[in-house]
Amino acid sequence: MIADLIKANRTCRRFDEQHRITPATLLELVDLARLSASAANLQPLKYILSCAPATNARIFECLKWAYYLKNWSGPEPGERPAAYLVMLNDTRISKTLDCDHGIASQSILLGAREKGLAGCMLAAVNRPKLSTVLNIPESLEIKLVLAIGKPKETIVIDNLNADGDIRYWRDDDLVHHVPKRRLEDIVVASYEI
Amino acid sequence: MIADLIKANRTCRRFDEQHRITPATLLELVDLARLSASAANLQPLKYILSCAPATNARIFECLKWAYYLKNWSGPEPGERPAAYLVMLNDTRISKTLDCDHGIASQSILLGAREKGLAGCMLAAVNRPKLSTVLNIPESLEIKLVLAIGKPKETIVIDNLNADGDIRYWRDDDLVHHVPKRRLEDIVVASYEI
Repeated sequence: MIADLIKANRTCRRFDEQHRITPATLLELVDLARLSASAANLQPLKYILSCAPATNARIFECLKWAYYLKNWSGPEPGERPAAYLVMLNDTRISKTLDCDHGIASQSILLGAREKGLAGCMLAAVNRPKLSTVLNIPESLEIKLVLAIGKPKETIVIDNLNADGDIRYWRDDDLVHHVPKRRLEDIVVASYEI
Repeated sequence: MIADLIKANRTCRRFDEQHRITPATLLELVDLARLSASAANLQPLKYILSCAPATNARIFECLKWAYYLKNWSGPEPGERPAAYLVMLNDTRISKTLDCDHGIASQSILLGAREKGLAGCMLAAVNRPKLSTVLNIPESLEIKLVLAIGKPKETIVIDNLNADGDIRYWRDDDLVHHVPKRRLEDIVVASYEI
């Protein structure tokens, strides 16, 4: 059931870094994005794949993790992602993106989850630095970095409290809590027969 | 397998309009979006649901269909969507969106596909008119309209020709063809051990 997969597909920030991810797995995930919808079918998204520890380490230096966890600057060595997909917009094909990168990311992360992996979409990226690290030409704009690995944290969905605070947080057992709005709070109107 | 669902989840523009969709089904689909990732967990997306023929007809008048099919202005009566989800950004929560609407749309359409339905993400929307039709407050910005129904067309994925023409097209049997770039054309580099 897709509902089970979507529920299980939680943003993950701590991984078993020793669990290697193969290039073939990354290609399978990119293929899921390739076969997903694209606005006006332009398909401007391109990808850089990395499952090489040395390159991973250089990519990691360009990322900012978990804005709401003020006392945590990101995963420690050993808990870092075993792979990355750098998602690029080819501006020769489409000057701007509307939501292709969201569609593609969801396909990729659902595919990863089905394989027992998990990931994190990172938009807080030092783009100039990452462009240099990966030698990315100017025509390719960095949209997102998807970090992927074998999950090593427990993540639970909570109902949003009355105070409306949407910030995720970690409890004393390092369980990661994600407050979600209720269905009735996001449905504005329903026109029915 | 999520790969099968993603492959089967093709943008559809002709439906069996007599196949009704219930409010409960629409709520289930919105719930899939609710449980999907949201940038900084802000969850600014809100929804208007419609499965009422009279409202559907008024929504339909605000939509432009299939930019590349120049001799076709949209589905005929009887082949129109049986339901709509109007996806709104609550600008009181987030002034702009990055890709939440893409993530949410992919969750919704994969869920619809699993139920034997199909859909189309429409961004070419007469927003002022639709705001009036649905009495949408100014604080809610229309991002996308998702049209949903029981599919009544055959859609196939082709490899992109050497000419690079990405425009979808219909053959004499009204089969809808969608040219997709090859995997090797969208992978820029792969860093491997």
